Amino acid sequence: MNTPPNDRGLPGTNLDPWFNSYAQRTAGLSASEVRALFAVASRPEVVSLAGGMPYVSALPAELITSAMERVMRESGPMALQYGSGQGTMVLREHILDIMALEGISGSVDDVVTTTGSQQALDLVTKLFIDPGDVILAEAPSYVGAIGVFRSYQASVAHVAIDEHGLIPEALRETIARLRGEGRTIKFLYTIPNFHNPAGVTLTRERRAEVLEIARRNEILVLEDNPYGLLYFDEKPPEALRASDDDGVIYLGSFSKTLAPGFRVGWALAPHAIRDKLILAAESATLSPSSFSQLIIAEYLRTADWQGQIDTFRDVYRERRDAMLSALNEYLPHLSWTVPTGGFYIWLTLPHELDAKQMLPRAVKELVAYTPGTAFFADGRGRHAMRLSFCYPTPDRIREGIRRLATVINGELDLLQTFAGTGALDAARPDSHYASPPPDLD
Amino acid sequence: MNTPPNDRGLPGTNLDPWFNSYAQRTAGLSASEVRALFAVASRPEVVSLAGGMPYVSALPAELITSAMERVMRESGPMALQYGSGQGTMVLREHILDIMALEGISGSVDDVVTTTGSQQALDLVTKLFIDPGDVILAEAPSYVGAIGVFRSYQASVAHVAIDEHGLIPEALRETIARLRGEGRTIKFLYTIPNFHNPAGVTLTRERRAEVLEIARRNEILVLEDNPYGLLYFDEKPPEALRASDDDGVIYLGSFSKTLAPGFRVGWALAPHAIRDKLILAAESATLSPSSFSQLIIAEYLRTADWQGQIDTFRDVYRERRDAMLSALNEYLPHLSWTVPTGGFYIWLTLPHELDAKQMLPRAVKELVAYTPGTAFFADGRGRHAMRLSFCYPTPDRIREGIRRLATVINGELDLLQTFAGTGALDAARPDSHYASPPPDLD
Repeated sequence: MNTPPNDRGLPGTNLDPWFNSYAQRTAGLSASEVRALFAVASRPEVVSLAGGMPYVSALPAELITSAMERVMRESGPMALQYGSGQGTMVLREHILDIMALEGISGSVDDVVTTTGSQQALDLVTKLFIDPGDVILAEAPSYVGAIGVFRSYQASVAHVAIDEHGLIPEALRETIARLRGEGRTIKFLYTIPNFHNPAGVTLTRERRAEVLEIARRNEILVLEDNPYGLLYFDEKPPEALRASDDDGVIYLGSFSKTLAPGFRVGWALAPHAIRDKLILAAESATLSPSSFSQLIIAEYLRTADWQGQIDTFRDVYRERRDAMLSALNEYLPHLSWTVPTGGFYIWLTLPHELDAKQMLPRAVKELVAYTPGTAFFADGRGRHAMRLSFCYPTPDRIREGIRRLATVINGELDLLQTFAGTGALDAARPDSHYASPPPDLD
Repeated sequence: MNTPPNDRGLPGTNLDPWFNSYAQRTAGLSASEVRALFAVASRPEVVSLAGGMPYVSALPAELITSAMERVMRESGPMALQYGSGQGTMVLREHILDIMALEGISGSVDDVVTTTGSQQALDLVTKLFIDPGDVILAEAPSYVGAIGVFRSYQASVAHVAIDEHGLIPEALRETIARLRGEGRTIKFLYTIPNFHNPAGVTLTRERRAEVLEIARRNEILVLEDNPYGLLYFDEKPPEALRASDDDGVIYLGSFSKTLAPGFRVGWALAPHAIRDKLILAAESATLSPSSFSQLIIAEYLRTADWQGQIDTFRDVYRERRDAMLSALNEYLPHLSWTVPTGGFYIWLTLPHELDAKQMLPRAVKELVAYTPGTAFFADGRGRHAMRLSFCYPTPDRIREGIRRLATVINGELDLLQTFAGTGALDAARPDSHYASPPPDLD
């Protein structure tokens, strides 16, 4: 081999003849340590509060089937063919209508359809990140975003949040500290609505303040908004993008308001960035699926899609209520966030408990969750977990929380029994993981 | 801005407030200079011999519609949901059957379904390429691959080919020269069957020799085979991957044998590489479309897919014959390759003609092609063009070649008239382009 030796400690590499050939960026590429556990957790007897799978069974299949039949009858060859790298015009026009619900007025020319909004996240990162560049993100942040950022060798700097979302003062301080260290900050990645995993929503006042801080510091904002239309009571404040066309790249998705199986999302980019985004998208996948895009466009043209989103809202509201009520009943001594939309609750454990260490015991008790460490780039989050209420039925959610309480309370009892004996103080590894699957399983 | 100034000369950047923020890799990201022309060339009165669009109208729409109806009836929620990052098991099993037709025996565990084989190309490049690393590729090579390679700051070293494909001696010499210069060669990218754009096929003897050279030099082979089943007379020799499990990543696609609108392709990777490829795929798009994958799997399970490929073969054979006969009739003084499958003929012009410079005149005469420069990373190819026979009907192909001959012969006449006057010796720009669209339009 003419490549330099590599000792990045990737698993199983001693059997890999190409061990010395991988790019440096693969050092950030590691499988979830809990991946095997999640495979177990997908067995039907386990209540999984771990995934981010929408409840697609609430979508009538015939709406999709009939849209698809019409598409194939009326424009079959177009659906089966390559399309524009920017995405199909007819879908991009519908996307403008959807974004208008969140206060955004954009041009159809600035919408880029992507293979899920995950691809948009990947492409934006590819466009902006040189190794070592800093991305600001909430503490905690979306596991799949952290994985992408790491895959381009970005350094993620977490910014503190509270129940009202990102804390402007913490953002200011983080920027000042990093610039003082001579670091290059490329963008702020934020999920303002029904945050994954924290379940919180950025207030209207803070939105203005965050935008002002970003503008003053010339930092681009990457606004990820897959859950915005899934509010339970009242609409969240307008999108950040609604009041800043040049400084915000907005990411939207059909995965949560329709179905993730199509893999269709989009970016609304500042005009100057838009061309580069299209070129990057074409390089990555040539074009998004014409088949998926035309079916979604036909669905949006003919079905009561807003009524369908209302149905999803009702489903998830009931499940959120079930989880909150079960938490109140079974784990009243702990604290958690109270989401007003979306899929997730963030549960904080007593400091002596480690969510990742506890997971095997939980799976044995037939309940699964995602440990908090998944949502940090820096090893934090051990004393927290994300609980998803999107997929199981209310009864199952209740049973899942009951089982979880058994595990947590059992651990706490054990700690109390052995308190002071030193038997439980063995070193705990501080590793973390970054690949997206926990969000899917 | 806390980022260093940037003077990479990207177009329109003076209006871009984020001009100084882009990653260094975006320096390789440039729009095709002929993109605007191709937009004109997509008008119906123009015979486009430029695109790589398969003739999907030869696929009966009801085969897709009925497969989709069964999928939605029998496994709708699975089709609408996120899937495995590696791809749906049932489709991966069918993919093994397809690869068996080319002599490949692999494990279903080593197949990774991707968003078109373009995504696999992107992910493999992301896994292996650090800036400055060398990728070996045929001279010429696929425009979309060159774009991907450039987007990861690879250096492409072209290796000479002839009518029998890659020349082993040229491969040996290129490797020796690059290693002598201390360069790091990461992989050989090759299209052994019905090469895009050259139309040639690597002989059986040379396949063994190329593999032997790669093995001896510990160079990974990336075998791209979208056209292998679209042979006109006899099957091409077995795939490279058929005789080397550890040294070859094989890329396959449904885009040419079924339909590109699904955006489904695959990689068969050496076992050691497979895990990293899945992680990279999950990071990029979470999972391939379950909807597309299940419909394709159902199509393969129930339809006469091999009969359908026979139909495509008949369609493209007739079109190849039409193009060859028209070339013989209208441009007998030029030379071209004679493909035995696939979509493309490579036409060599007299040295005094420049295919890119001539393109506006051709479009004015209502015929389009892709200039040879698109297929080189180093500005070569000015005196050649790719002619696609996949999409227009035989009559249109014949008319297109007639128009092309008018343009070529007109240019030659002009040159002869003004020979020696110096009037035509103005400097010609040596720029080139790399984005994939010419292959799509």
